[in-house]
Amino acid sequence: MTDFIRFLEPQPAILSRRDAIVADLVDLLPKDCLIHAPRELVPFETDAFVSYRRVPLAVALPRTTEEVAAVMRYCHKYGVPVVPRGAGTSLSGGAIPQEDAVVLGLSKMSRILDIDLANRTATVQAGVTNLNISEAVSPEGFFYAPDPSSQLACTIGGNIGMNSGGAHCLKYGVTTNNLLGVRMVLVDGTVIELGGKHLDAGGYDLLGLVCGHEGQLGIVTEATVRLIAKPEGARPVLFGFETSEEAGSCVADVIGSGIIPVAIEFMDKPAIEICEAFAKAGYPLDVGALLIVEVEGSEAEMDAMLADIVEIARRHGVKTVRECQSATEAALIWKGRKSAFGATGRISDYICMDGTVPLSQLSYVLKKTSEIIDRFGLRVANVFHAGDGNMHPLILFNANDPDDAARAEQAGNEILKLCVDAGGCLTGEHGVGIEKRDLMTHQYGKVDLDQQMAVRAAFDPGWLLNPSKVFPLEGRPAA
Amino acid sequence: MTDFIRFLEPQPAILSRRDAIVADLVDLLPKDCLIHAPRELVPFETDAFVSYRRVPLAVALPRTTEEVAAVMRYCHKYGVPVVPRGAGTSLSGGAIPQEDAVVLGLSKMSRILDIDLANRTATVQAGVTNLNISEAVSPEGFFYAPDPSSQLACTIGGNIGMNSGGAHCLKYGVTTNNLLGVRMVLVDGTVIELGGKHLDAGGYDLLGLVCGHEGQLGIVTEATVRLIAKPEGARPVLFGFETSEEAGSCVADVIGSGIIPVAIEFMDKPAIEICEAFAKAGYPLDVGALLIVEVEGSEAEMDAMLADIVEIARRHGVKTVRECQSATEAALIWKGRKSAFGATGRISDYICMDGTVPLSQLSYVLKKTSEIIDRFGLRVANVFHAGDGNMHPLILFNANDPDDAARAEQAGNEILKLCVDAGGCLTGEHGVGIEKRDLMTHQYGKVDLDQQMAVRAAFDPGWLLNPSKVFPLEGRPAA
Repeated sequence: MTDFIRFLEPQPAILSRRDAIVADLVDLLPKDCLIHAPRELVPFETDAFVSYRRVPLAVALPRTTEEVAAVMRYCHKYGVPVVPRGAGTSLSGGAIPQEDAVVLGLSKMSRILDIDLANRTATVQAGVTNLNISEAVSPEGFFYAPDPSSQLACTIGGNIGMNSGGAHCLKYGVTTNNLLGVRMVLVDGTVIELGGKHLDAGGYDLLGLVCGHEGQLGIVTEATVRLIAKPEGARPVLFGFETSEEAGSCVADVIGSGIIPVAIEFMDKPAIEICEAFAKAGYPLDVGALLIVEVEGSEAEMDAMLADIVEIARRHGVKTVRECQSATEAALIWKGRKSAFGATGRISDYICMDGTVPLSQLSYVLKKTSEIIDRFGLRVANVFHAGDGNMHPLILFNANDPDDAARAEQAGNEILKLCVDAGGCLTGEHGVGIEKRDLMTHQYGKVDLDQQMAVRAAFDPGWLLNPSKVFPLEGRPAA
Repeated sequence: MTDFIRFLEPQPAILSRRDAIVADLVDLLPKDCLIHAPRELVPFETDAFVSYRRVPLAVALPRTTEEVAAVMRYCHKYGVPVVPRGAGTSLSGGAIPQEDAVVLGLSKMSRILDIDLANRTATVQAGVTNLNISEAVSPEGFFYAPDPSSQLACTIGGNIGMNSGGAHCLKYGVTTNNLLGVRMVLVDGTVIELGGKHLDAGGYDLLGLVCGHEGQLGIVTEATVRLIAKPEGARPVLFGFETSEEAGSCVADVIGSGIIPVAIEFMDKPAIEICEAFAKAGYPLDVGALLIVEVEGSEAEMDAMLADIVEIARRHGVKTVRECQSATEAALIWKGRKSAFGATGRISDYICMDGTVPLSQLSYVLKKTSEIIDRFGLRVANVFHAGDGNMHPLILFNANDPDDAARAEQAGNEILKLCVDAGGCLTGEHGVGIEKRDLMTHQYGKVDLDQQMAVRAAFDPGWLLNPSKVFPLEGRPAA
């Protein structure tokens, strides 16, 4: 109990609450596992959703589940809010701190604990990056399927928090479809194990619930994920169309016919130009919209599936069909797509929307998005996972012009409402975070939100875990 | 409020609580939607897990979500327990009534509401049978993937309650992987919509939580499910082995190598004999264990995958490999497998276990199962979804001999504990129900069970929904 001495016996003249918490955490954690000097806290003030900044009280960087549990026991005892953080790549502000909170960073928990090829599973600490898992099993011919564009940096813990997707999730599913188990520290510091190497389990699917919990139900410290065998071959093919509407209705027809390629990615003209200028991927510049369709399997399987897709594309007036001729060319095509957000960032500030719609609504929503953007006098680049109906309009604006920024935010809100009204939802893979918190009432009624908050309370009755996210401030239970 | 008059103003000399509830329900529901005559209640006293029987207070058979809501409002107001029931095919006693409960049967809610091929979805009422969905979309070349052996009878509502699987779930996943949305009546009669035709959604994955809720979180009245395009072709192939251990290690190696056939079903010698006698499927009778491996796709794809599987099977000493020569033969092979439980029932009483283990443990668990059965002086037939590690030992016994029945139950408990101890779990697809309720403490510690019950309380704080199932009586919160 020496850990808690300072807070329990404060010296009021000397220590503020903040200082007392920091002093207690200094005692609780090894020296290099706590950041509290104001200057060193600045890198943690925001995440990849840079619209808000808050310097946290301290940043704890535990190395073990036990250290995470010690921090949680302490914070729970003294009512200190905790904001979990993986690599800070959240596009919805999921890892943005608050001033009275301890950021609990998992970056030191980056060990791969077990690779079990007989059961096709990998068990890793939560701070392992997404790509590291695939790299660790690549020599044996396996990979971990969900592939967010940020996969070089983002952690599996963050992926679980946001139920992250990626280009290749059309065939292989998102995080929840590839997660088998977690070890998680509850808000009071007790440790719980959910799932495992086996299929399903008795009782409720708490594992499924934790996937997408946005850091509010506990701190995931270890995860067991499914490994998938690499296909015999894979081939991205470029389909260029005159208009976005044609490309959109082609996607709906491909999926509607029952064909499931590995990926169908969409780029409109601005996105093509931005990505081509950055990656020199060889995208056609004389088209209005581009689909990257990846097929995989044996040469014969790929040929057969492609023939079916080409036939559908022709019915939608495809202008260009280009198969890539080499692995280098294939890698470039994906590099162009995966660097779309970064490449856009080089030429303009932007906010990235994440609405998801039924595929039959794709063309309609693209058209309406364009009208909304025009009405606000802004520009947009669309680059997204079309096969999943997961749209990512990047709204370009000038962050130094407050008026421009406000209009971008308003346009973004209208686009997300458009997605909901078209039978879709606010987020496909980026999560609600702080960005879409106040839009939740457009998607959900009071009954729905109350039920979600009741489930939250079953894990964290005191709203200590990432409390400023997901739920609108209005309508929360009284503190 | 006339609905509740009788209960509110009881005439103590005339009406017992039971009679008052029945009388109120008579007022609440149309005449043909309530069963309360003692003789007519008998068919509802148990389900396919026939070990326990209880005649319920009444059976409500509403036709609409609104009628379900009315029943729930009433039962919630007066603290009447409710046991939801689909087709009553539960193998874990999930639909077994209790004497003080109203059974809420969904059998009258059997309409297909919407088939949306552009979005590859079907929306159906909860009482629609599993097979009806596939039959409704078959002419357009689609099907609904999860295929429990009881698919002719079992309902989608029951499938959601138990997160049901089936032989073809190896490739296509179980119910939770194919469910997109539900309409559900909460315990107090409010109606909630979870998910929809789109991918993912903001907020927690309550849809995932509801899948496998065993009728405890609400009454699902409608479901939107994913449709899948029928493959170009499909071919079940029989692989005969000398021993169960060889067959088990072959399965582990096939899956471990990254090959995912549509199905890998396992039968040991007793199961082969029982099924062959019933279905005349042409199973080889000179082998100790049989795998039914189904591959699908084009002829070339099937040939390529089969060649890989045959090579692995040879390394495990396969004795017989037989491809079927016609669609008729293929249908017979599946008929034999899918009627295994019924065929077993013709020759003996049995209880069916549902433990699931990591594939690397398959051979070990088969061997230990056999030792346990020998020790109890019983017989067993193993017929199960090997590719998923989802084992179904059928323990044969004489139900007219109480001693035999007790030994069968004990042996079953030991087998399930064996599965858990081998890194697996109590149930793959049948659910916990009443059967495995008291074994939950072998799989979960107090922290885990408390957390699950806290989630339950977030939906049903008064434990009115299917209260006697899933959680051991000991350790429940005080009433």
